[in-house]
Formats: sequence, structure tokens, C-alpha cells
Amino acid sequence: MSHHPRVRCKALHSKIMSAEEAAALIQPGVNVGMSGFTGAGYPKAVPVALAKRIMDANLAGQKFKIGVWTGASTAPELDGALAMVDGIELRLPYQSDPVSRKKINAGDMEYLDIHLSHVAQSVRNGFYGKLDVALIEVTAIREDGALVPSSSVGNNLTWIESASHIILEVNSWQNAQLEGMHDIFKDQDVPNRVPIPLSNPSDRIGEHTIRCPIDKVIAIVETNSPDRNTAFSPPDASSKKIAEHILDFLDFEVKKGRIPPSLLPLQSGVGNIANAVLTGLNKGPFENLTSYTEVIQDGMIDLMKSGKLRMASATAFSLSPEAQEDLNAHMGEYRTRIILRPQEISNHPGIIRRLGCLSMNGMIEADIYGNVNSTHVMGTKIQNGIGGSGDFARNAFISFFMTPSTAKGGAISCIVPMVSHVDHTEHDTHVIVTEQGLADLRGLSPKKRAQQVIEKCAHPDYKGPLREYYRRALELSPGKQTPHLLEECFGWHTRFLRTGSMRT
Amino acid sequence: MSHHPRVRCKALHSKIMSAEEAAALIQPGVNVGMSGFTGAGYPKAVPVALAKRIMDANLAGQKFKIGVWTGASTAPELDGALAMVDGIELRLPYQSDPVSRKKINAGDMEYLDIHLSHVAQSVRNGFYGKLDVALIEVTAIREDGALVPSSSVGNNLTWIESASHIILEVNSWQNAQLEGMHDIFKDQDVPNRVPIPLSNPSDRIGEHTIRCPIDKVIAIVETNSPDRNTAFSPPDASSKKIAEHILDFLDFEVKKGRIPPSLLPLQSGVGNIANAVLTGLNKGPFENLTSYTEVIQDGMIDLMKSGKLRMASATAFSLSPEAQEDLNAHMGEYRTRIILRPQEISNHPGIIRRLGCLSMNGMIEADIYGNVNSTHVMGTKIQNGIGGSGDFARNAFISFFMTPSTAKGGAISCIVPMVSHVDHTEHDTHVIVTEQGLADLRGLSPKKRAQQVIEKCAHPDYKGPLREYYRRALELSPGKQTPHLLEECFGWHTRFLRTGSMRT
Repeated sequence: MSHHPRVRCKALHSKIMSAEEAAALIQPGVNVGMSGFTGAGYPKAVPVALAKRIMDANLAGQKFKIGVWTGASTAPELDGALAMVDGIELRLPYQSDPVSRKKINAGDMEYLDIHLSHVAQSVRNGFYGKLDVALIEVTAIREDGALVPSSSVGNNLTWIESASHIILEVNSWQNAQLEGMHDIFKDQDVPNRVPIPLSNPSDRIGEHTIRCPIDKVIAIVETNSPDRNTAFSPPDASSKKIAEHILDFLDFEVKKGRIPPSLLPLQSGVGNIANAVLTGLNKGPFENLTSYTEVIQDGMIDLMKSGKLRMASATAFSLSPEAQEDLNAHMGEYRTRIILRPQEISNHPGIIRRLGCLSMNGMIEADIYGNVNSTHVMGTKIQNGIGGSGDFARNAFISFFMTPSTAKGGAISCIVPMVSHVDHTEHDTHVIVTEQGLADLRGLSPKKRAQQVIEKCAHPDYKGPLREYYRRALELSPGKQTPHLLEECFGWHTRFLRTGSMRT
Repeated sequence: MSHHPRVRCKALHSKIMSAEEAAALIQPGVNVGMSGFTGAGYPKAVPVALAKRIMDANLAGQKFKIGVWTGASTAPELDGALAMVDGIELRLPYQSDPVSRKKINAGDMEYLDIHLSHVAQSVRNGFYGKLDVALIEVTAIREDGALVPSSSVGNNLTWIESASHIILEVNSWQNAQLEGMHDIFKDQDVPNRVPIPLSNPSDRIGEHTIRCPIDKVIAIVETNSPDRNTAFSPPDASSKKIAEHILDFLDFEVKKGRIPPSLLPLQSGVGNIANAVLTGLNKGPFENLTSYTEVIQDGMIDLMKSGKLRMASATAFSLSPEAQEDLNAHMGEYRTRIILRPQEISNHPGIIRRLGCLSMNGMIEADIYGNVNSTHVMGTKIQNGIGGSGDFARNAFISFFMTPSTAKGGAISCIVPMVSHVDHTEHDTHVIVTEQGLADLRGLSPKKRAQQVIEKCAHPDYKGPLREYYRRALELSPGKQTPHLLEECFGWHTRFLRTGSMRT
């Protein structure tokens, strides 16, 4: 019997080596496409070994940086380790690591924040330069060399196809029963594209595995490590109120006949507020739900267990240790109700439009006219990135953006006169929700929107100042389509930067 | 023989009446869905009669306003007349009329500026309220009541289907041979959507006419008036330079193998710069071109005549009188190479992504990080609207935004530290072009973008001040991902508002 039960392709046994040996195959200046999406399915050994190699090079006075391309965010063992040793020249398309964030905002790391549905096509067509190495975690390698993906799919298909060399991490911690959960479909490239034949979240249109040209494989590293599993906070009072407002709204829309009683495929961003909405749905009246989303988090697993959620389509998991345990214990059953797809498909604008998703995403701040900042604190410091929120919000049947009305103990109003960075424009936001209430902006001119956003969503402490700004803007603004006072529209932000509070 | 040769459905002859009689059937407070897209195919008689009726009501002290929904912009006889008598309560989804613009910016008219691909689905699902009347120009009514569309399709299918009552203007000025040019395809509504079977700009997937429930028809008005045909200026030096930069870039991309020698389906915004690019293509090396766009303007007709452009798909024409004459004289031939579709299809995000359009749109200003303002002069005054630029730019294979580097004789720099309104985010703009040069922003972090935009696109007079802003922002900005000084990022705009120039 083989000592490498997960490496079922015998021809590849000769490539099995240590993480250090594999890391030695990665040269300075290359671009590496790594697996990983919201802390799931990222390579766990080679990036750390590579970081140590880079550290040694740095100590020897040599420059050693690489380009790191992933699905989305990863974990400390990847982003954290490589950022710590200043090993990343350019990072794309998304990250959420605290060390990387610090380096980026200090100006020490280049970061490119991209719609997640755009990455694969841009890489395949060489928009970002040459991809040298693919470094991918898999659950197993089949007899024919095909790869059983891990707990995320992300851009792995594109990395495998586009890279000159492939390094695989075979993680035996990942449940072998993941085999069969994935649906690997490759969109054609222009000018040869045809309609993607997906009309329901539950449609399977591809293969279970990623075909791999085994002659490109230069190293295989065996690992046995869990994904970084972040625990979710239990919903706080504010998240519960936001969830209530959304549930009431959905109820109203169903009664109006604008959405069916089983709703429409749910897209839910990552985080505690999104999780609270899912928890709310679990107590709500809606049955036979589906999701077409990026990430499956705890609330979705709970909805599946209760039977409310019929099936879920995503590109990755993002589970607490408890939910992960539950998933692993019942993988055979979940496998029939969960599909993981390439992010080019999970986030595809045409499919999101076709399915008519209900899109629910967090944000940093919204302004009175419905523009949304998802990425930059005070306009200049990147928090994480736009991720898939643009793919979904622009094409959703109804797009919700959610935030508590204040941050930093009330020192920041998340409803401001003008957002300090725009990721989602006034043309893209249907509904703004805070714990204070819900503003339905559909069909409203900017001025009508301003009244709704201020009266429904702003915190009472900031309602007066917002009304006053709007009143003065309406009076003094040169144009009255979108009244603004450009001299003072960022006054709240600059006050916060000076005094630590937006309050006067 | 019938006296109404264009009204071939005999059952409808009893509904033929004067424009004044038809206008009398439109009541105060209703929403009217009108035909019309870039000054093509709009109703020409009833809106003027209605405006006069509203004027009479106003003089009698009665309030009389309606909601006006169209495909896109119309003409003085529609927007101008109704705005002049303050007859419009809410206008959507796009307009470009000077009288309306003035009323909107004075705060006297509500205006809702919407992605053109979003309108039909939102109306069908009741997001904007009830549609009472459809007022549609057609070329003819067939024996079975089916409507032969006019020189634009726009949202006409949705208006006909959604409205309680229908008023038709049958315009015998429109060439009878338009019959057969249109391709009327109806996308299903959620949750029953399936892939739209369109894989090439030349694919015909629908019917030639719009089916019409004749019992909803309350009036038919016969007209004989041309569309408003705006002449294009011959390309000026600045437009020619912009076109040259784009052609050089396309040439380079073809050589790199990133786009095929016949390019990819062209989307071209309306206006003189776009027309100059088309003129440039007519002298360029590319053959066997196609377009998948909103509007067919003069440059495209020229490209068809020279044989460079194989076929064009759009939702409307926007032609000079000369080009209109040429089209009319050879309609039988053009009909085999031009397809007019509903704007829900011409601007469909999924189809644009599938075809991989090359999207070229004008703008008001861009900032150093690649954010684009397409709609608001100095952040508050609406110019026209976003139109289809978002539908195309977000989903294009390569998105170009074009503007001369300065406006108002140099008093305005169209490259600014921060745009005063965002319609297209940093995530959506690939290429910025002015007469000064072309900045290819693909794969660049914000800071690298800033250097490109300043050095390649800014006017020499503003290059120094932009470099200085960027240098100081880089030094003093709290975050260095997108360095900004919020106290002064709109200083150029406020200076213009105070002094009439952005120059110090």
C-alpha cells in the first residue's frame, strides 16, 4: 500500500518533497498564483517556508519579493508570513490580513483591489503579466493526475492552466469526501464564448476535479493542517436589528408579489452582520431557500440543518471550528446540497443577473445619496477590498448594503454627507440598512434618497447635523440634482482625523 | 384602398385621432412610458399636444405633472416641450435636453439616472410604481396588430407589456423598409430566466415586431416627421489625437495576441470623440469588425460603407441628416447588416461580458486613481446621465474613458486630484485617454495608476500641480493605498466655482 494515499497518481510520487525544498523552487521576482479564499483551502506549508527563505535572503542583503495572486483572503500562514518579511511586491485581488494591511497602508506593499469575477479572464489574457508558479492546496490527486479541490476553488483552475510550473500541497486534514462537491466549469475566452448553461443555483455544469498537466508539476508537499476557522460572534443587538429590518422588508416584497415566497438566491457577504441575517432567516417564514454566493458561513449551515435552505452554491467555506466539525461529520449528506465553483462562475455578472440574487453586503460608510464605500477608512486606508460585492450588487435583483449606524463607540457616523471613497455608486444601491432602519432607495431621485437615508438610517446623534448639511447644500449648492458643498463635504472625516471624533 | 396604409390592422382604424384628442386621454399624475433613444424614434405629436394641455391647466391654476420614462434621451418636442411647461414630476432613466437640465439643476424636476440595462426589469417588477400609459412611435402596425418599431427600440417592449393603456404614433416618415431590421427578444423575469442564446453580435434571437394587445390601444396618431438629426462636428485636433492613441493601443494589443485582428465587438458612446475614433478605425488596419453597442452614429455607417464593419447591433440610431439620407436610400441593404434590439439586450451585462466588448465612452473628468465622473459638472450639476456606460465599462474586455485634457479653454482640467462625483470606480476603468496620451491602468496599484494618469493624460499646464498634489498626498495622507488630502482634494473644483478657473 502506498504511503501517500492522497497522491493516487503514482507518476507524481517522485515529486513529493518537503515544504522547504518546494519553496526553494520559487525564485525572486516571480508571480505566484495561490489557492485560498476567505481563509479556506490556502497552501499552509510552502508560504511559511518561502517566508523563511526570503528572511534569510533579506538578512544576506538580497532583495526577494514575489507577486501574490489568490482567490481572495487567506490566513496568517500565507499573507501574514510573506508580508512580515516584506516578501510581497504586488498583492491581488483581495486580502484581509492585518500585517499586509499595515504594510499596504504604510506604502510598503502594492495592492490591487479587483472585482473577483474579473481576475481569471484578466490573468488568462495577460493583463497582469506572466504567471510563473501555481501553488495550490488540494484534497487529493487522483490516479489520472486530476486534482480534487480543497475547501475553496477560487481561481485555482486558472492558476493551474496559466502557470508555467505547479506546486501542490495535498492536505490530508481536508475531508476525503469533499470529492464530488465541486463543479469545475471553464468559461471560454473571447471571442469564442457561448452562454454558460446555468439557470438554477443547483445546476451542475462541469467536472468534479481540475485537470492538471502533470508535466508542469514541480513539487508536491503533503500537509495535515486545518483551515483557519474564525469563530463568529453571536449576533449583537445592532446586527439583530439590521436582520429584523431586512426580514420585514423581504416579507413586504413577498406580499407585494415582487419576489417569490422562497425568495431568490441569496448572496451574503462575510461577517457577523451577514451571519445575523442568516440567523434571522432561520427563524423567519421563508422556506425552500437557495443561495448563490461566494462563501458558505455558519448561518448557511444552520439554515441547511433546519431545512430552510435547500442548497447552497459558493466558491469557498468560511466556518467556525464547530460548524467545520459538523460539516466534516456529515460531509456525505452536505455534498449533495453544496456546490463549490470557480469564482469566475460563482461571481459571474451574467449569472447573478440571470438568477436575480438578493445581494447583502457590509460596508464602511454610505452617503446621503446612496454611494457606498466598502474599502477605504477615511478615504485613504484600505480595510480589505471590494471582493465580490460589486459583482453581486450591480447585477442583483435587490442589493442591500448594511452597517451599524456608528463605529468607534459613536465617534464615527457610518452615514456621511459624502463617502470618502466610492466602490458602489448611486446607480447600484437599492437598500441601505442600519440598526436604526431601512431606506428603500429604488425609484428615488438623489434628493428623495437623502431624506430617506438620513431619516431612516442615521444615528440620532448625527441626524441633526446631516439634516443641517443637506438643508444648506440644498440652499447653496450650484446644482440641485445632487446638492453638495464641496468645501465641507469631507468636514466630518477631517474632523475625525484631527480630533478622533466626527462630532462637533 | 385604406387611407391609412401604415395602420394595416383594420380593427384599430377606429382609434385613429388627432394628437390633441390623444393627449386628452393622459391624466395628471400618471406615469407615461415613451419611446425614444438618443433622439430617434420618439413620439413627435402627442407630447407637444400634451404640453399645451398642461400649459392650459397651469394657466387655469391646476397642477398637471406626469412621470416620463423613456429609453434614453429624446428631443425638444418631447423633453423640451414638457419641461418648458413644468409638466414633468419625475424623469427617468436618462435625458440630455437643455431645458430639462436647467429645471433639474434648479431643483424643479426630479430626475433618476439609471443604468440603461436595469430599467425594464425594475419597471416590470414594479420598483418605480405603476406604468399607466405607453406612448410609442412605430413605423407601421401590421394586420395582426403587431408593431413595426421605429428608429429605436429602447424599452418599448416593456412599456407595451406593462402599461394599462397604449397610445401609438405611426410615423410614415420612417422608412417602411425598417420592417425586418429589429430583433425583439424578451428576457424572462426571475426566477424563470434561462441563458439568452446570443453568442455573436449578428445573432438574431427574437421576432421582427412587438406583439401588441390591441384592446389596450386607446389612440393612434398619424405623423410624418423626421427624427431630430444632429450633425456631428468634423473631428477636431483633440479628438483626432485621442483616436490615434486608441488605434495605436489596439494595434499593440493585437500584436501582443490579447485581442484578435478583427478586434472585439465595439461599443462606442455617443458624441464627437467617439465618432472620431470610428473615423480613425476607418483609416486603420483592422478589418471584419463588428459592433455591439447602444447607438449607431455616422462613423459606424461610414465603417459599413467602406466594408470595414461587417455588422452592427444597437438599440437606436443617432445620425446626421446626411447619414440618415444615405441609410434611407439603402435601407434594404443596411437591414441585412444592422440589428436593433431592446436596450435590455443591447446593454445586457451578461452578453457584454460574453462578447467581450471594447467599450469606449466619454466622460466629464477622471481622477489620478482612475475614478471617472460621467454625469455631474463640479459634483452637483447633472450634465446628461450615466446611460449605458456602466453596463458596458464594467463588463467590457477593455474599457476606455476619453476626454480632452481640459475644458472651458483650459480653465478646467479634466484630470483632477479627486473626481467630484463617481460613476465608474477605480475597479472599472482600464484605459484613460486624452489628446495628451493614453494611460493603461490594467494591473496597476492606485499609486502606479496616479503616475500614469498624471504623466500620460494631464495637460502640461496642470501636470505640475497634479504632481505636487500627489507628492504631498503621498507624504501626508494617513493611508498610502490611495493617498489623498481630504481638506484640499476638491480645491480645484471650489477654485473654479469661486474664480472661474482651476488655475492658481
